[in-house]
Amino acid sequence: MSDNRNLIGELNPPLRILLGPGPSNVHPRVLRALSTPLVGHLDPEFISIMNDVQSMLRRLFGTKNTMTIPMSGTGSSGMETCFCNLLEPGDTALVCVNGLFGERMSDIVGRLGGKLVRAEAEWGKPIEPDALERALKANPARLVAIVHAETSTGVRQPLEEISRITKDFGALLLVDTVTSLAGCEVKVDAWGIDACYSGTQKCLSCPPGLSPVTFGDKAMDTLRSRTRKVSSWYLDLSMIERYWGEERFYHHTAPISMIYALREALRIVLEESLETRFERHRLNHLALAAGLNSLEIDFLVAEPYRLPMLNAVRVPAGVNDLNVRKYLLNRFGIELGGGLGPLKGKIWRIGLMGHSSTKQNVILFLSALESALSAEGVKLAPGSASAAAMEFYSHNEC
Amino acid sequence: MSDNRNLIGELNPPLRILLGPGPSNVHPRVLRALSTPLVGHLDPEFISIMNDVQSMLRRLFGTKNTMTIPMSGTGSSGMETCFCNLLEPGDTALVCVNGLFGERMSDIVGRLGGKLVRAEAEWGKPIEPDALERALKANPARLVAIVHAETSTGVRQPLEEISRITKDFGALLLVDTVTSLAGCEVKVDAWGIDACYSGTQKCLSCPPGLSPVTFGDKAMDTLRSRTRKVSSWYLDLSMIERYWGEERFYHHTAPISMIYALREALRIVLEESLETRFERHRLNHLALAAGLNSLEIDFLVAEPYRLPMLNAVRVPAGVNDLNVRKYLLNRFGIELGGGLGPLKGKIWRIGLMGHSSTKQNVILFLSALESALSAEGVKLAPGSASAAAMEFYSHNEC
Repeated sequence: MSDNRNLIGELNPPLRILLGPGPSNVHPRVLRALSTPLVGHLDPEFISIMNDVQSMLRRLFGTKNTMTIPMSGTGSSGMETCFCNLLEPGDTALVCVNGLFGERMSDIVGRLGGKLVRAEAEWGKPIEPDALERALKANPARLVAIVHAETSTGVRQPLEEISRITKDFGALLLVDTVTSLAGCEVKVDAWGIDACYSGTQKCLSCPPGLSPVTFGDKAMDTLRSRTRKVSSWYLDLSMIERYWGEERFYHHTAPISMIYALREALRIVLEESLETRFERHRLNHLALAAGLNSLEIDFLVAEPYRLPMLNAVRVPAGVNDLNVRKYLLNRFGIELGGGLGPLKGKIWRIGLMGHSSTKQNVILFLSALESALSAEGVKLAPGSASAAAMEFYSHNEC
Repeated sequence: MSDNRNLIGELNPPLRILLGPGPSNVHPRVLRALSTPLVGHLDPEFISIMNDVQSMLRRLFGTKNTMTIPMSGTGSSGMETCFCNLLEPGDTALVCVNGLFGERMSDIVGRLGGKLVRAEAEWGKPIEPDALERALKANPARLVAIVHAETSTGVRQPLEEISRITKDFGALLLVDTVTSLAGCEVKVDAWGIDACYSGTQKCLSCPPGLSPVTFGDKAMDTLRSRTRKVSSWYLDLSMIERYWGEERFYHHTAPISMIYALREALRIVLEESLETRFERHRLNHLALAAGLNSLEIDFLVAEPYRLPMLNAVRVPAGVNDLNVRKYLLNRFGIELGGGLGPLKGKIWRIGLMGHSSTKQNVILFLSALESALSAEGVKLAPGSASAAAMEFYSHNEC
């Protein structure tokens, strides 16, 4: 006889338009892939699914690296994977810090017993190559770690010069592309990146839960020449390599449904083509910028360094951050990101990522934001923001 | 313009009857929950979903522990979570080893810089309390780690006596319930378990990707009185506690879709009731045993210690392990587990877990196995195995 006391009701979350720092809205085809009945993680048919995921991930990362796989955890597990496989206690890591994720990298280096050196820039600004060069001169490092797309600030970090300097000093280059992958150019091989990780819930428009990671030859050599085991069993690539490689040796049970979802998300990206997808992200960002400009809302980041998929803008003077975000969520079902750390209460983070980066979302968001600002007492010419975006779209196909 | 070269085809995996060591077949309601559109991981509505999951997990674990959450990784990440939060370098851990997962625990202790002491039993036998007591006398340990349901051997480990001894020596008790949770009794509070982890892809019949973990007061005190940070940022419960607790402080992006799935899987378990579910697992195990007995196939494990959800049986003399498993997979779509480590090629692991533990699967499996054994040249009275199971069911409602 069933005990029906305290039973919990059906899953029925509200529908949201996800315009925050991730997750982004997931494409219906990816949701459908998630609901596919499972095969086992050692099934011969699963192997071809794994191969598909690896080959498509290589195209997104712009790499030929054999070791290109989705780690069985969210983006931060990918960050930890890169550090714990490449660093040994006592090794020096030079971490570039200009936002929350550089801070997180620094924390991880300390936990692993690494010697931490920081090259810093203000939150909202990119790391200057000179700052890196000075730091490397003073502190020979085994690796340089840097964030390509700082989700906490909306900064796009140019990497070519950073890579050249890192190589001049013989260090490995480790790059966070959690927010940039599949939304703007990421070229692992051309930019000389040795280890790179990303997430699935940003421009891939797949649910959170996996972290695509790629390791080049030099990184794999570093892993293979370690004197001590990797501190994490779960994230040890020398073992995981045997499961994703030809051997298919059991390590841990792969998150099968999430790999189904990632496969579908990757197919969608390649069907659109990377170039078209980047252009879509760029144009929707510019349309949003046109609308925000008409509202006299300023970007945190100088124009050359703005990420198209993550728009960090200053909360106008006299406007309450939380009021506006609650208004958008409760009246329009729109999720917007707030600021983190020193930027808490000072910025909004408007995500236009993957399937969320649409003309419809830009127009709706601008109208909704106008309404929220009016409720906060800001004097506006009603309709001007969405009209400015419309005007932009009329000249730029998207 | 889309680049259609090298596009990869639709996801179309074969339908499988999953009777291996996990994953088990996922209930259609759980698959449907997976395809639910996402809210953000900081959405106020997601908080109530997290609360639902926590309260249902507490009922399954038989605990009042506040710190009861699904970790964002597969079962092995839960194993690592327990060790890396509770052990500091130099601490002694007494690991009970009678199968692969005890070996894995030992490996993890070494990686964390812990001092490893092992209490061992042959693969296929439970750990004797005396062996633990002798080991603890010789080596005072901070914690004792043991596997409740050894997935590599099918052994059910009685825990009451183990717990009493562990407490007599003032150590923490850490238990692996990956395969047992929701399939047979697990009583964290009544058995005095301090830290416990499980997986979602066994008797919960949810896809792999999360690891339910529970920490009692004594374990949380140990975590809080650490002198060094937890080596893993991703698995550090002192930070994760702030996200799952009242503060809802951002740590990492939760795997939202998998949490939807887990919530639905937990609802299904509690609708059936734990008692009914355990009885179902027990009866299907006994029906399978009746059928295997008629085929003169022996269990690896002595009767009192057999797990109902994971039946480890000896490959009959003269029969090729791999031939039989391929036959079952290719002709019937049935996945069966092989042996690991010293048992490779010597045993089959027949999983009857969660949604896979049905009368229909038992009958079909026995008939399919008969057919496979005939193909291997074994002389059999056709139909005897399924008839023996049928006979059992006619006397035992299931």
